[in-house]
Amino acid sequence: MKSEYDFLRYLEKIKIFHKNIVRGIGDDCAVLRFNNKNYVLTTDTSLLGPHFTKDYTPEEIGHKSLATNLSDIAAMGCIPLYALYAITLPKMSESWIKRFFRGTKKLLQEYNVSIIGGDTTRGPLSISITLIGVQKHNILLRSGAKKGHEIYVTGTLGNARAALVLNNTTKGHRHFRKYLVTPTPRVSVGLELSKFASSCIDISDGLVKDLKNIAISSKKGFEVDIDSLPVDPKFNHYVNPELREMCLIGGGEDYELCFTCNKKYINKINDISKKYKLKITKVGVMKQSGYSYTTSGKAYKPSVHGFDHFKDT
Amino acid sequence: MKSEYDFLRYLEKIKIFHKNIVRGIGDDCAVLRFNNKNYVLTTDTSLLGPHFTKDYTPEEIGHKSLATNLSDIAAMGCIPLYALYAITLPKMSESWIKRFFRGTKKLLQEYNVSIIGGDTTRGPLSISITLIGVQKHNILLRSGAKKGHEIYVTGTLGNARAALVLNNTTKGHRHFRKYLVTPTPRVSVGLELSKFASSCIDISDGLVKDLKNIAISSKKGFEVDIDSLPVDPKFNHYVNPELREMCLIGGGEDYELCFTCNKKYINKINDISKKYKLKITKVGVMKQSGYSYTTSGKAYKPSVHGFDHFKDT
Repeated sequence: MKSEYDFLRYLEKIKIFHKNIVRGIGDDCAVLRFNNKNYVLTTDTSLLGPHFTKDYTPEEIGHKSLATNLSDIAAMGCIPLYALYAITLPKMSESWIKRFFRGTKKLLQEYNVSIIGGDTTRGPLSISITLIGVQKHNILLRSGAKKGHEIYVTGTLGNARAALVLNNTTKGHRHFRKYLVTPTPRVSVGLELSKFASSCIDISDGLVKDLKNIAISSKKGFEVDIDSLPVDPKFNHYVNPELREMCLIGGGEDYELCFTCNKKYINKINDISKKYKLKITKVGVMKQSGYSYTTSGKAYKPSVHGFDHFKDT
Repeated sequence: MKSEYDFLRYLEKIKIFHKNIVRGIGDDCAVLRFNNKNYVLTTDTSLLGPHFTKDYTPEEIGHKSLATNLSDIAAMGCIPLYALYAITLPKMSESWIKRFFRGTKKLLQEYNVSIIGGDTTRGPLSISITLIGVQKHNILLRSGAKKGHEIYVTGTLGNARAALVLNNTTKGHRHFRKYLVTPTPRVSVGLELSKFASSCIDISDGLVKDLKNIAISSKKGFEVDIDSLPVDPKFNHYVNPELREMCLIGGGEDYELCFTCNKKYINKINDISKKYKLKITKVGVMKQSGYSYTTSGKAYKPSVHGFDHFKDT
């Protein structure tokens, strides 16, 4: 057991059967079925170090810890409903808590999410959030991609990691910091995609790892054209060529969606892109097997593996 | 904002309305209603320091972190169904994780609970568990106690705190340690009590605090006879007189149930006590207002306030 992946596969094995479980561990959320409706559930911890640093304001920590959880609901194409907060704090600071929830509240209101439970403990700062959402159209799983389905990503890639690799006194860092600190969960777009996409995941651990998760779950392969990956207009200006690959596909924390669908849905994708003023870019195609990348028409082997809390990227 | 209580009152104010929320923050669990059935949800974090110490085995940490969450479901008189685990670990140790889940699995199987979600992060050891349960008979809230209802507690009180105050090389510590480290959640008893009890809470923060929570939620008072509080046969032998009050009513971590009901149910209580071979003791009565304690028939003022992570007991 060396990685988060191994840990989750181990958890999967501790099986106890319940008829309401549509899907347990192995996707962005678990899926439970009550009264002909599917509900999705996800839990995630945000920590000082891997998820935020000392320069984050409490408002930013509040925003980011919820946004990253909302992104898991977005990747399932569902509507978020309820949140439970388990917060560990070094001390009970009223001003810190109020500022933390000021950052949180904006997102709660935007997505109409209710906090229904809370627990607080004294210790090193840590925020565990459990979110519950409900299906509207279809549930987007990782496992539905078919051979020939096209692969798309929302937004631009590499911005969060760019903010991390650029010195925080630079113009470049300031340009990219908002992507790292206050990411936008693609909830509305995920909901629209759930009408026709065949699989979906959020790119929180880097495309190279997250797309592989779709391929593994769907028992398929893929081919991605590195040159087609969408970047911010300033990306190539600020990020050194030797760091671009890591930021673009190995970085993580983009909280964009990667999804697959039959190519006949291209008009729907364009409509969504226009409606939400969000770039949606075709980056590759699902194959029968194998994971391949190309650049300038030639085969390419990435040197990064995506983010894992227990490994170096 | 100085305590967990203040924190939860603050969270309560961040209200966003959903028609399915029967009860939000303010009880052992939140209550959601789907298809004429109530589901209860609770989240709790266990940490090195307040919840377990270095002498706990991984199996014991696995047991205790789940048992304390199951106790919240027991206090609501519900059946536990699903668990989501968010675990922060200093390193990915396969043997530690397997031993942790060995301790967990016994309880999962005993109560037929399914792990449906997981997240793992690198950092100081911390275990946040979210549990979901379902109503069978009635939901036991803190708010249903009426004037004249009798107050009962299950098991014996003060054992967990006794283990903490007794030097861990002593016979006394060894006698009480199992209550502290591997508490038994009163799930089956809670389910039986839900047929007739008017309110219920688990005594995880000490009777003086938890019974007050019933009184506040029910807008009533109480009178408790200190002399009637049930103790382990060895309690008075091992615990110094000056520490008894703290262990008995201020200690916390007993994970027994405190409930109220009309006195006409005494036969039902006796039946449950026999069926589960568990002492159930009347310790007081609900009054219109005021919180009072007596000993040897005289008024008594406790010097302890119950456990709060951000205050000293």
